[in-house]
Amino acid sequence: MTRFLALALIATSAALAAFPAQADEGMWTFDNFPSAAVKARYGADVTPAWLDKARASVVRLEGGCSGSFASAQGLVLTNHHCVTECLSRISTASRDAQANGFFARTRAEEERCAAEQVSVLERLENVTDKVAAAVGEGIGPAANARRKATLTELEQACEDGYRTRKSPRSCEAVTLYGGGQYFLYHYKRYDDVRLVFAPETSVAFFGGDVDNFEFPRWNLDFSILRVYENGKPAVTPNFLRWRRAGAQEGEPVFVAGHPGSTERLDTVAQLKFEREVSQAHWLLRASELRGRYLQFAAGGAEQARIAQEPLFGLENSFKVFRNGQGVLLNDTFMTAREAEEAKLRKAVAANPKLGPYAGAWTDIEQALGRYRAFYYQHNFVERGAAFGGEFAFAARALARAATERSKPNAERQRQYTEAALPKLRQQLLAPIPDYRDLEILRLTYSLEKLVEYLGVDDPLVRLVVGRDAPRTVATRVINGTKISDAAFREQLWGGGLAALEKSTDPLVQLALRVEPEAQKLRKRYEDEVEAPIAAAEERLARARFAIQGTGTYPDATFTLRLSYGAVAGWREGDRDITPFTTLEGLYARATGQPPFALPPSWKAAEQRVNLGTRFNFSTTNDITGGNSGSPMLDAKGRLVGLIFDGNRHSIGGDYWFDAALNRTVSVHPAALLVALDEVYGARSLTRELVVE
Amino acid sequence: MTRFLALALIATSAALAAFPAQADEGMWTFDNFPSAAVKARYGADVTPAWLDKARASVVRLEGGCSGSFASAQGLVLTNHHCVTECLSRISTASRDAQANGFFARTRAEEERCAAEQVSVLERLENVTDKVAAAVGEGIGPAANARRKATLTELEQACEDGYRTRKSPRSCEAVTLYGGGQYFLYHYKRYDDVRLVFAPETSVAFFGGDVDNFEFPRWNLDFSILRVYENGKPAVTPNFLRWRRAGAQEGEPVFVAGHPGSTERLDTVAQLKFEREVSQAHWLLRASELRGRYLQFAAGGAEQARIAQEPLFGLENSFKVFRNGQGVLLNDTFMTAREAEEAKLRKAVAANPKLGPYAGAWTDIEQALGRYRAFYYQHNFVERGAAFGGEFAFAARALARAATERSKPNAERQRQYTEAALPKLRQQLLAPIPDYRDLEILRLTYSLEKLVEYLGVDDPLVRLVVGRDAPRTVATRVINGTKISDAAFREQLWGGGLAALEKSTDPLVQLALRVEPEAQKLRKRYEDEVEAPIAAAEERLARARFAIQGTGTYPDATFTLRLSYGAVAGWREGDRDITPFTTLEGLYARATGQPPFALPPSWKAAEQRVNLGTRFNFSTTNDITGGNSGSPMLDAKGRLVGLIFDGNRHSIGGDYWFDAALNRTVSVHPAALLVALDEVYGARSLTRELVVE
Repeated sequence: MTRFLALALIATSAALAAFPAQADEGMWTFDNFPSAAVKARYGADVTPAWLDKARASVVRLEGGCSGSFASAQGLVLTNHHCVTECLSRISTASRDAQANGFFARTRAEEERCAAEQVSVLERLENVTDKVAAAVGEGIGPAANARRKATLTELEQACEDGYRTRKSPRSCEAVTLYGGGQYFLYHYKRYDDVRLVFAPETSVAFFGGDVDNFEFPRWNLDFSILRVYENGKPAVTPNFLRWRRAGAQEGEPVFVAGHPGSTERLDTVAQLKFEREVSQAHWLLRASELRGRYLQFAAGGAEQARIAQEPLFGLENSFKVFRNGQGVLLNDTFMTAREAEEAKLRKAVAANPKLGPYAGAWTDIEQALGRYRAFYYQHNFVERGAAFGGEFAFAARALARAATERSKPNAERQRQYTEAALPKLRQQLLAPIPDYRDLEILRLTYSLEKLVEYLGVDDPLVRLVVGRDAPRTVATRVINGTKISDAAFREQLWGGGLAALEKSTDPLVQLALRVEPEAQKLRKRYEDEVEAPIAAAEERLARARFAIQGTGTYPDATFTLRLSYGAVAGWREGDRDITPFTTLEGLYARATGQPPFALPPSWKAAEQRVNLGTRFNFSTTNDITGGNSGSPMLDAKGRLVGLIFDGNRHSIGGDYWFDAALNRTVSVHPAALLVALDEVYGARSLTRELVVE
Repeated sequence: MTRFLALALIATSAALAAFPAQADEGMWTFDNFPSAAVKARYGADVTPAWLDKARASVVRLEGGCSGSFASAQGLVLTNHHCVTECLSRISTASRDAQANGFFARTRAEEERCAAEQVSVLERLENVTDKVAAAVGEGIGPAANARRKATLTELEQACEDGYRTRKSPRSCEAVTLYGGGQYFLYHYKRYDDVRLVFAPETSVAFFGGDVDNFEFPRWNLDFSILRVYENGKPAVTPNFLRWRRAGAQEGEPVFVAGHPGSTERLDTVAQLKFEREVSQAHWLLRASELRGRYLQFAAGGAEQARIAQEPLFGLENSFKVFRNGQGVLLNDTFMTAREAEEAKLRKAVAANPKLGPYAGAWTDIEQALGRYRAFYYQHNFVERGAAFGGEFAFAARALARAATERSKPNAERQRQYTEAALPKLRQQLLAPIPDYRDLEILRLTYSLEKLVEYLGVDDPLVRLVVGRDAPRTVATRVINGTKISDAAFREQLWGGGLAALEKSTDPLVQLALRVEPEAQKLRKRYEDEVEAPIAAAEERLARARFAIQGTGTYPDATFTLRLSYGAVAGWREGDRDITPFTTLEGLYARATGQPPFALPPSWKAAEQRVNLGTRFNFSTTNDITGGNSGSPMLDAKGRLVGLIFDGNRHSIGGDYWFDAALNRTVSVHPAALLVALDEVYGARSLTRELVVE
């Protein structure tokens, strides 16, 4: 479940929130966790010390996941599906770490995941007042720019302070409640992340896309990384002890991690924009790309290997958005949201003090109306639908970074500030596999869609493809580019705009040709859409605080959250789903054919493992994509599970929390230990863990 | 534009209609054409003789198009895109009639389109009272069965009568106004249809999918067929004279043809079912299949040739449904329909005589609610989503026909009655190209979607694929089947169920294994969904007649209709679109690269043709898919155009007619004549025409 990664692909407007939570609902910030309610409901004591320990033991994988320290020597437990990109990049036709798994028997064999970084949240600093003081009450483009410049300046001052003290940290501005609160989050960041262990994809993702988001389930979706500092395993005294027996049915459990994005209190206009425009459009495009990948993969074993990683991500997102769209198309859901919104608007209208907020809904609706007029242009040239493939991404990012770095820090787009550059640089300069056929497929696809949606006479189309067929253009620039060469990228990164302009590389030239138009579309979006929506969401947040109070949680923002719940199944139609699966079920479900074919390691182990071992289980926690790899903790702060998915009902969790049906799905620690000790003979690893 | 063909793929419920027409709106039946209104608006006299002549000159291509007789020796003018299947089937790797066109310089060279039939409507017989008398007022499954049996019996009696008189005719029951009227349409049918002329696809479909549904436009979308009787060209005294100069801007024009399907007065529940379930689902699946085809076609020239025909049909439908879904997702549209429906319901409720009709809307909504519970099962096993590919279609149809033919005629499904069998038999026994890779692609795709939507544990999935991967099953049965052998199919057709059951052919076995479950799902659909909706639609039609009168037209049903209008452009945003394009524009738009690459014939002709020749033009007529190939007539009944498309706004015409924007697009007769005479040197053909 990598919903967060996927969400980055579509134009979801930043969500607003602030509402009373019910049942086990809520992805709570660590500064506002409802310990009293949890104590009352479950008898568990979530103390400040508990929270501090959890915060320090949980990590964010900058690729879009969560994880937890598992030893004092930097071991990190996360999902297998959180390292698919790393596995893909270290694999070749003759050494397939996706198919065969990976196990570094010695530290020397631990292999770098070159694009990955791991972050630990050390401090939360509330800067709401500082931002408010700098921005004031303006709601136009100027105020929007001032707000962003302020966040950049706060980050820079924060990082400068650490640098002065010779202990560099990353500082990130965090917008909560759609602008109701601003924080600086201070992270310790590790940029040397190495792969230690990963099982075979066939058991990690047993059942594949067909079983994804289903339960009962049997996925060994785990991997182990290690963070390094100065070439040595990092010292990480805050790690989680594992509780082999796990938690029992009904026992309270907690998920600490970094959920990516929810839209639970989007306005009706925002939901309808998704339903009619952004999500509808994404789904149709994704479905076609999926078809192209699948047919590409049918071309042979090597093509199947190459397509596996992008296909996994796409199919996962597709399932999320298809089901999400199902929620938005459901009349009952939309009618209920309309009624809620009408009620809130009435309450605001009835309170003279809230008068300034009454226009916020209309402002959002009008901004989205303006966006419709240039949505395709913006999406195909500047946003998620533009220029598919690793090669094109790199070329576009180099062009954008060069343009932005030529400006003062506070005037740059927020993705290119000094605080953001190290991560971007590392991602850009990490090796890219040179799969030209796949790159041609991806670029052809996105250029063909550009032509299809904008029409052949659109000036942007003429600029990008001229009078050539998209496939002709894509084939020419992909076959002619050197962008897959990391040294070439490093040289372009170092040389900035001048180096790019001097280059005769056809893909670089294409990226530069598009850059001014892309910037214009970005500016138009920021001024006509983002600015009024940001201002309106801030007013909505204040209105909600005023009417509903502050005992609420903000929508997810890929920042650290804590969710509480209990081990539980649910009632599906006329059937009871029990919360635990066992190893016996795994073997019963194996057919020998993908995606239900077990690897040799597990087939060989069938006679010696305890078939009663608990394997996956379901709980009532409220999570979403980005939580992948999160530890599940018991009341004593011990690891009792590894989050990897939600059931199918959890997908609607983007829009609302259904306490009766929404369930989180995890790997049981007993399964992890049986796998490491008995199936893979990885005692060198389990010796490093602390297991109770 | 083959929207009709496409509509057959999704579960659109039969539409209901009966409403007052405005502007140039309406696809009128020939027995109820508003001649007085047309006289008042345009001064044109549409007399009974005019109507009779038009009716007798216009034909239906049973593959899903329209056409017109162009000579007394059986020449038929229709679209190029109406013969793509024929062109594909007579093409091979070494003789590509799609790419290079087709021209029979002598009658001996005219080549059979083996699956095609051409029908002329000779008589319309109103049988509403007979059906009412037989069915009564029942609304349950029994009444539904009685209604269908009655239609079958009426058809059979009608055909028996002709057979006795030794002049066989086809009789088809036609349901209009959702059951407000029943007719028997008597057709003269030609089953020996031969290809005479077709231009190269590159000029017929110039601009390809990118320009499809766009205007200004430059498509030479025509072909010429000839119908034969007893091995000789048929004698067809009713044919259209061509008017070389065409019609001028503002001149009244008429389209006579067979529009396939509209849903202008679907209830809101039906529209929402499409929006949330049937159309949404079709679009996602079609988009993926499109991606698979496109990647298949990228594999080489021969793959591109093989994929061209199915890809064209799919992309055409995709554009229709994507835009149609855009209409359904548009809040303004849906709100307006809700308001209209509320008004009508209020009027019905206010009239005590209409009391029995008041529950019709709720009946439809409840029936669709029941359908949701088994929509995927029904669609994947019995309807459009089931078992893709020509091979699987043939096997399933053989199994179904054998099952149905073992029942008395009146008890059979309506597609397998004695009246329907000759067409089905001809289609089934026509040659199928043996493209196994494409067949594997299509069957794999539909089995994978079956598994994806029903889940791997569904008993239907187990029945179809067992514990195998869908690709394994598809590859095995496609590589193992002899179904592509027409003699084998003929033997199975002749041998009925016994022959099928004896066969060891793996695809035939698969079809037989599925047949009982498919029949169960069909029965469930008929009883729980179709029966109550049919009964409700009949009541709605009566309610509308009572409130709105009978001066209306029914929704399209692939039966003969006449639409009136005038030559006109429209205003698109801030631009005026003029109604004519010329040859000059064609050459200006040609880039040399697909889909804008002209064939050698047209490149060579550039210097000698009159570049001012009118090429395509737009009119205000109200048409839809199925009208493809329809003649456009002037007030004197002369051919002034060949319909091939609508502009992009016409797509919303499935749901409503927008007089300001909805335009029909045709090939100008001058372009046809320049092409035949000057580009292709086909004077042997033009000599057969009567041109003024």
